[in-house]
Amino acid sequence: MGSAPQTLFTNALISTLVDGEITPEKGVVAVSDGEIVYVGAADMLPADYADFQPFDCGGRLITPALIDCHTHIVYGGSRAKEFQMRLDGASYEEIARAGGGIVSTVSATNALSVDELVAAALPRLDALIAEGVATVEIKSGYGLNIEAELNILRAAKKLGELRPVRIKTTYLAAHATPAEYKGRNADYMAEVVLPGLDAAHAEGLVDAVDAFCEGIAFSPDELRPLFDKAKALGLAIKLHAEQLSNLHGAEMAASYGALSSDHLEYLDAAGAKAMADAGSVAVLLPGAFYTLKETQLPPVAALRDAGTKIALATDCNPGTSPLTSLLLTMNMGATLFRLTVSECLAGVTVHAAGALGLSEKTGTLEVGKAADLAIWDVDQPAELVYRIGFNPLSTLIIGGQEV
Amino acid sequence: MGSAPQTLFTNALISTLVDGEITPEKGVVAVSDGEIVYVGAADMLPADYADFQPFDCGGRLITPALIDCHTHIVYGGSRAKEFQMRLDGASYEEIARAGGGIVSTVSATNALSVDELVAAALPRLDALIAEGVATVEIKSGYGLNIEAELNILRAAKKLGELRPVRIKTTYLAAHATPAEYKGRNADYMAEVVLPGLDAAHAEGLVDAVDAFCEGIAFSPDELRPLFDKAKALGLAIKLHAEQLSNLHGAEMAASYGALSSDHLEYLDAAGAKAMADAGSVAVLLPGAFYTLKETQLPPVAALRDAGTKIALATDCNPGTSPLTSLLLTMNMGATLFRLTVSECLAGVTVHAAGALGLSEKTGTLEVGKAADLAIWDVDQPAELVYRIGFNPLSTLIIGGQEV
Ligand SMILES: [Zn+2]
Ligand SMILES: [Zn+2]
Repeated sequence: MGSAPQTLFTNALISTLVDGEITPEKGVVAVSDGEIVYVGAADMLPADYADFQPFDCGGRLITPALIDCHTHIVYGGSRAKEFQMRLDGASYEEIARAGGGIVSTVSATNALSVDELVAAALPRLDALIAEGVATVEIKSGYGLNIEAELNILRAAKKLGELRPVRIKTTYLAAHATPAEYKGRNADYMAEVVLPGLDAAHAEGLVDAVDAFCEGIAFSPDELRPLFDKAKALGLAIKLHAEQLSNLHGAEMAASYGALSSDHLEYLDAAGAKAMADAGSVAVLLPGAFYTLKETQLPPVAALRDAGTKIALATDCNPGTSPLTSLLLTMNMGATLFRLTVSECLAGVTVHAAGALGLSEKTGTLEVGKAADLAIWDVDQPAELVYRIGFNPLSTLIIGGQEV
Repeated sequence: MGSAPQTLFTNALISTLVDGEITPEKGVVAVSDGEIVYVGAADMLPADYADFQPFDCGGRLITPALIDCHTHIVYGGSRAKEFQMRLDGASYEEIARAGGGIVSTVSATNALSVDELVAAALPRLDALIAEGVATVEIKSGYGLNIEAELNILRAAKKLGELRPVRIKTTYLAAHATPAEYKGRNADYMAEVVLPGLDAAHAEGLVDAVDAFCEGIAFSPDELRPLFDKAKALGLAIKLHAEQLSNLHGAEMAASYGALSSDHLEYLDAAGAKAMADAGSVAVLLPGAFYTLKETQLPPVAALRDAGTKIALATDCNPGTSPLTSLLLTMNMGATLFRLTVSECLAGVTVHAAGALGLSEKTGTLEVGKAADLAIWDVDQPAELVYRIGFNPLSTLIIGGQEV
């Protein structure tokens, strides 16, 4: 069942997402050695593929398997207690005294071995996979020292061995300044972030670098040494930008050819244009917007006008988005940001692939791409965005193999 | 496993929800013939129960099984296409022309047989059960003629035979005025709603009556004949009230001793007080608030001040809350309405039971109640509210039986 090296998925409705197209057409998908070799009408199927092992989709909808292009799923501890205290009216000081805030995640993460980090993250990864996710980006950023940052990336790599998903790793040591470097961002950059990146790169742990560009974190100029080194190492660049204010970080990242800038509530039209020109994907994160009860909406109209590609991701993290559902993320993208159904679906497939530099590999159903298919028990793609807290996944196929 | 007539759930953390208490204590739960016979410390367990069949909870958390006290899960058709069109910028007129709106659900519902209604609702019910729900209220209201209203209630009853859940049925013919009675609410009441209630009652299909009290639906005075008849028949009373404006429906319902009034965004302090005095539960429905992007928050402070009990429910319906997750409903209650963790948990257990007239039967873990237990793979109850789109249910026990 879908595990034969050559499989023909028959009796399906197919939304290819090629050029973002979601309108489904009846057809078949032929898969050989993990790659798509045919997508289209059954009666146009080349004779070579006719004897592939059939997999009857029962009229169900096939989309590209989903891609969560922005997560922080590897961390220690839980912030549930802090969530409870805040609702009970505790002040930030009381929460801090009780060990809350990002500091608590950093110390809980530092206390875990790689195997323990893997064990902590695995249920979160499994929740994503259960909803049809085949590719997951995982960031470091809760270590804030070289060894702990490397451990997070090692755990991320291990997750990709334990589960048949494609993992992309992102080095985010410039997530926050640890207490011992308070007020000394440049020193933290020089003594931890940059040498840590060299070490992580030498160990083959990094696909991209990222940073938190914000008044409470790093300024664009403070991040230039990181991006210069990433360039020198041939690593992709991503940025948390314009979430709480407009520091023009997305423009700066675009000038480095960044794959994406993410959050972007305060992005302006010039920033949207710069991103479009550079081919940077705008990764919107409605789970954080919802959790923080933000009121500043990302500039969807400006992104559309500029032609900036839009992706959606869970931003799964313990502080501001403890969210492990990419289906719900789509509903939030539609409900909270008024993205269209096709924008939401493209945002977790084709453009999410773009945000990870995987456009050649996955994100659409077309010949030559990996056979990453999600088969859904629905009769139209809008159901995947419309429903809230419902998982209609029937079968997930990654690289031609049934998961 | 949990199916023996006499079972002892050992090695557990227990949040009893008695008086809303969520702080977990280590202990055991003894169950005999579907009822709880002991809850408490293992070393105080009466000797009579010591040889019950053990069920090792592995240190997991036991709460009362959840209760969804307000749903409309039995309906035909889908509104996904309409959702898509609206995001694409279609006008209400275009959507109506394409067959959208509640009218589309009414005609799709009328087109289905009881068995087809059951088949349509079953995946929605199963989604609820998969998250630990043991009791579900189901309303009619998409038939709007006698036979179709009865069919919805028949389907609801059948769902309770197909799945081991407790179903409470609510007659909601006064949900909207069908086209043929436009502008003639009193005639619709006299010719359809009231005789339909007699018929449904005679067939044993009704536990409670409900209505939509709103400027666009029925006024409080128009609903008096319905509530008078419900009283005469010995049926419980519920009301959709104060969702879009304050017609003082909740006060009117309270004067009839209503079990609950639901939605309540526009309820004032006097209404909250009237509800508290009458023992009416305030059922808040954050899924509809979220989907409709409402800005008027329900008066949580006034409800707390008055001592009105607060429940939370999915309001699962195709138009304004296509939500089938009670866990997510709790998160929305906390995130959107700033309810505390204990209020959220009490809202889907003890007070949800109150909203259904089931306080003697379920909603807490105490001797004499049904053995409806949810066993969760978490170490603290706050996790159930804090996480978004994650289901940590380990085992659901209904009436002592493992589901
Ligand atoms: Zn992030
Ligand atoms: Zn309702």
